[in-house]
Amino acid sequence: MIAATPVPPYYAVIFTSLKTANDQGYDAMSDRMVALAQQQPGFLGIESARESVGITVSYWTSLEAIRAWKAHADHLIAQHSGRAEWYSHYKTRIARVERDYDFESA
Amino acid sequence: MIAATPVPPYYAVIFTSLKTANDQGYDAMSDRMVALAQQQPGFLGIESARESVGITVSYWTSLEAIRAWKAHADHLIAQHSGRAEWYSHYKTRIARVERDYDFESA
Repeated sequence: MIAATPVPPYYAVIFTSLKTANDQGYDAMSDRMVALAQQQPGFLGIESARESVGITVSYWTSLEAIRAWKAHADHLIAQHSGRAEWYSHYKTRIARVERDYDFESA
Repeated sequence: MIAATPVPPYYAVIFTSLKTANDQGYDAMSDRMVALAQQQPGFLGIESARESVGITVSYWTSLEAIRAWKAHADHLIAQHSGRAEWYSHYKTRIARVERDYDFESA
């Protein structure tokens, strides 16, 4: 789904990753983290797709909300497992969404 | 690939889309637009994946570079075809990347 975010400004966390060959436990953890993120203060939405590269963009009201989610205990465990098991390379970018526009066919 | 972007700040265009059932000409146009974007002044990199939703994030040095690319004649034709043929819904977000961090396994 395309996230139904509010009028800007708001923040985006663009998480781009390459996986290892090890998928064990990955989907379950990924699903748990999406469910947990959705419960956090300041969460606005999430979009995700994977082909040769995985891209997950989550949207947040503020940098404080992003910091709190990054430091969430269960999320720290997931981050650790991600580095130890599932990701060979990732890049996280924190960005301020300044403008957006939509198209929806009639 | 994960785009090898420079030290922030720089800009991201987060393009999230849902396709129609019509794929005719889509891959060829998509490939042409990626090749053309890479030739534009201020282009820094691009990441793309599609599952139920498509996410393409392109990175740019400035808002001026993004504006020029948006107004490029061949890109305008592609945008028109996108709305007429290939996309049922899309959202474009212009964001300023303020911070990034990397992980690469040993």
